[in-house]
Amino acid sequence: MGLRLRPVNAEFYDLFTEAAAHLVGGVALVAEMLSESADKEDVAQRMRAAEHAADETTHAIIRKVNGTFVTPFDREDIYALASGLDDVMDEMEEVVDMILLYHVKSMPAEVLGQVEVLQQCADLTATSMPRLRSMQSLEDYWIEINRLENAGDKNHRRIMARLFSGEYKALEVLKLKDIVETLESAIDAFETVANTVEQIAVKEG
Amino acid sequence: MGLRLRPVNAEFYDLFTEAAAHLVGGVALVAEMLSESADKEDVAQRMRAAEHAADETTHAIIRKVNGTFVTPFDREDIYALASGLDDVMDEMEEVVDMILLYHVKSMPAEVLGQVEVLQQCADLTATSMPRLRSMQSLEDYWIEINRLENAGDKNHRRIMARLFSGEYKALEVLKLKDIVETLESAIDAFETVANTVEQIAVKEG
Amino acid sequence: MGLRLRPVNAEFYDLFTEAAAHLVGGVALVAEMLSESADKEDVAQRMRAAEHAADETTHAIIRKVNGTFVTPFDREDIYALASGLDDVMDEMEEVVDMILLYHVKSMPAEVLGQVEVLQQCADLTATSMPRLRSMQSLEDYWIEINRLENAGDKNHRRIMARLFSGEYKALEVLKLKDIVETLESAIDAFETVANTVEQIAVKEG
Repeated sequence: MGLRLRPVNAEFYDLFTEAAAHLVGGVALVAEMLSESADKEDVAQRMRAAEHAADETTHAIIRKVNGTFVTPFDREDIYALASGLDDVMDEMEEVVDMILLYHVKSMPAEVLGQVEVLQQCADLTATSMPRLRSMQSLEDYWIEINRLENAGDKNHRRIMARLFSGEYKALEVLKLKDIVETLESAIDAFETVANTVEQIAVKEG
Repeated sequence: MGLRLRPVNAEFYDLFTEAAAHLVGGVALVAEMLSESADKEDVAQRMRAAEHAADETTHAIIRKVNGTFVTPFDREDIYALASGLDDVMDEMEEVVDMILLYHVKSMPAEVLGQVEVLQQCADLTATSMPRLRSMQSLEDYWIEINRLENAGDKNHRRIMARLFSGEYKALEVLKLKDIVETLESAIDAFETVANTVEQIAVKEG
Repeated sequence: MGLRLRPVNAEFYDLFTEAAAHLVGGVALVAEMLSESADKEDVAQRMRAAEHAADETTHAIIRKVNGTFVTPFDREDIYALASGLDDVMDEMEEVVDMILLYHVKSMPAEVLGQVEVLQQCADLTATSMPRLRSMQSLEDYWIEINRLENAGDKNHRRIMARLFSGEYKALEVLKLKDIVETLESAIDAFETVANTVEQIAVKEG
């Protein structure tokens, strides 16, 4: 039998898994918001509720860190991971809110590609969080997230080129650019989470 | 009598209090710059002087850290707090400079709401800095700053929706968006300061 | 003879010097891209190759840290310096790619001033990296980079004022603003590298 230097504190892993599950739900709402037939007010309201639920999970993690003497990995890494996951949700909530507030009618089709990248990031993050417990099989996760972020970055530049092509009026470009950049920030935020997991795994591994 | 593990080094607290006082002065200049009757050249010049004075305080803190063997709290936290306070001033100076350089004639009225949020953040930060000495009664400060940042964020989105409403020409939207986003960065910079104080209080408390 | 607490591991210094040399090459490609007669497709392709080569150097540093028991300075500082140098290249590659993708015809002349700032930053960084070995004569480097960043910031604001002057159409302003802001991010990224070097020097000095 191996030696355990860190206690088994299963609740931390459950809470990180819960945080990632909120992100899977959040991406679904972003996708719904982009469909032409969406009731935008209703989707935005459900997004606010989802973002609130994610906040609750973040606070539960932070309360748990503050009330636990020996944590499964470094306190500052738990904070970084919890707030990293929370940041993804904040970006996605902002995307949905902007689509509502700016009265956006239609978006270039390439935007759907970014939502697909987000969906893959969320699914991958959700299946990887429970593996923090064993610290096994995590490398594929952060490599794949980095690959997805690269793909998202390339797609983002193509979307920007399309927005600047002359097809859209300047004011419409301004609105769409804001939304498209926030989508990219959400993808970047998934990469930050993966980088945090990599650092934890290197330290603890 | 309690046990003191850290020396009483009052000058650090005085310097942080001085740094926060510069921010109160800075917000007043931002507010003055937004009044229609302002002599913009003159306000911008006073803002540059205020930013320069704030820089001097920041450098005094850093010199003091480098020349002190046992600091009242961790060296890196002192750096983080000093540079965090300095960042707020930089953002406010940028707001004033942009209003001058871009020849902005008028701003949507909601911008005044953001300046009020800034004022409350500055006042709260200024009254809280002296409490670093006892590390008492700081929790209300960072909770309230977080609440103000949330209010600022909501207000920011409303301003953006107004800018995109069709009331302003695209080029004017571009200018105003830049300024409004820098105002929001100043509010965010206050929140970063509050988060740093929270981390210090948790560590030292 | 002095006492060495850290091993002489010359390869680390060679790799940092190599990383900085990539940046010198990168700035030259940015400058080439801005000349009216440039074959933009060709320059952008060479930039992608240069960015790829810089990535290889970054990965070589990270592999070396992970495989070395006692590093010449703190592991986290080596990571920070390697990724800081890599970030500069990413920003410069983005500038070149944007000029290609957005079909930019001409830029305000002041943009050349920013490229000159970048060139000076790159040259200074390249001549300073080998000095990490002795940790001598580095102070002038970070002071000068900070001065250059300030100059770049002032120049950036002048460029923005020019873009907003009414001389350019809103859609053109949007394109140029994106490029000009990424140029400024590249300068900021050089400053982040210099700040990292300063922190290392203060710690190890």
